Amino acid sequence: MNTLKEKQAEKQAEKQALNGVDVERLKETIGRLKEDPILARFQFRASNRWLGGSHNCSELRNFHGTNREYNHPEPFHLENDEPDVLFGDDRFPNPVEYVLHALAGCLTTTLTCHAAARGIAIEQIESRLEGDLDVRGFMGLSDEVRKGYQEIRVTMRVKADATADQLEELAKFSPVFDTLYKPVQVTVRIEKQA
Amino acid sequence: MNTLKEKQAEKQAEKQALNGVDVERLKETIGRLKEDPILARFQFRASNRWLGGSHNCSELRNFHGTNREYNHPEPFHLENDEPDVLFGDDRFPNPVEYVLHALAGCLTTTLTCHAAARGIAIEQIESRLEGDLDVRGFMGLSDEVRKGYQEIRVTMRVKADATADQLEELAKFSPVFDTLYKPVQVTVRIEKQA
Repeated sequence: MNTLKEKQAEKQAEKQALNGVDVERLKETIGRLKEDPILARFQFRASNRWLGGSHNCSELRNFHGTNREYNHPEPFHLENDEPDVLFGDDRFPNPVEYVLHALAGCLTTTLTCHAAARGIAIEQIESRLEGDLDVRGFMGLSDEVRKGYQEIRVTMRVKADATADQLEELAKFSPVFDTLYKPVQVTVRIEKQA
Repeated sequence: MNTLKEKQAEKQAEKQALNGVDVERLKETIGRLKEDPILARFQFRASNRWLGGSHNCSELRNFHGTNREYNHPEPFHLENDEPDVLFGDDRFPNPVEYVLHALAGCLTTTLTCHAAARGIAIEQIESRLEGDLDVRGFMGLSDEVRKGYQEIRVTMRVKADATADQLEELAKFSPVFDTLYKPVQVTVRIEKQA
């Protein structure tokens, strides 16, 4: 009897955690957000300190969401550098590489989450990303060359029981994809320190 | 005599490396890019693998620039997760937090680099960033709510001999600022794996 119960529990857990996503909890959350949209308002935060040259370090400590404050278990620390050809020491990724990492991760998590909500099992996802950047924009050598990425191409190899079109539609719910694809209001305020 | 020579060498190095940026080398590079714009075309790359749920890992191994290929000394590895409230285990930052880190780092490095090119010494930079995100967009609960960041606010506290307006103008040469502020062509192609 115990074995049967165990098997049932296992099946139930598998059902609930499709693609590693707790689907029951996801659906409960969606229900609560529909009732009270204030719960859906998140605010993510970072602080950063310059350490000389192209080296700087960010701390990610807390965020706001579901109408309350959250702390990460431990603050996360992330460091930026630049390769030698861009005048750095190449000890850490550079900021535009972090953008590719953010996009890759967000497309992947979004795809697994939305697939789980629709009962689509994902077995494997591997992505490759390329971003084109002409540094004449950054260096102010041409007004016609933009400073940021001109184009980013993502190829996702996915093993799943759904068509490529379906999977693309689900991946494009990604917040980082949307953040890059559509303009974001970014305000930069400088405070002079004495 | 040696001491004098050493002092002279030190002064020269300080002059060349304003804000930790080798200004002579920067100016040489700008000259070369003006002559041959092909050198300015960079391509950054990432690959990413899904590890289950909201956990995935990127590798940053190489990039293209100045008409040749470069390898990082060791490939960099970066991991994504989500906090518990967003159905993850909170072991690593989430993708939208990486975006804030990328922006903070890029504004900072850009400011120090452009200031150095203009002979402006920077003593200190500390930044705080906040990004607003309504997860109803991600969850597909409203067509009127965008999926990505609605607004990102950056406050940079800077100790430098320049006005706040000058510093803001220099920081905004940032490629990540431009990547977020203006739309980027992002193409996502799904390859079905058998």
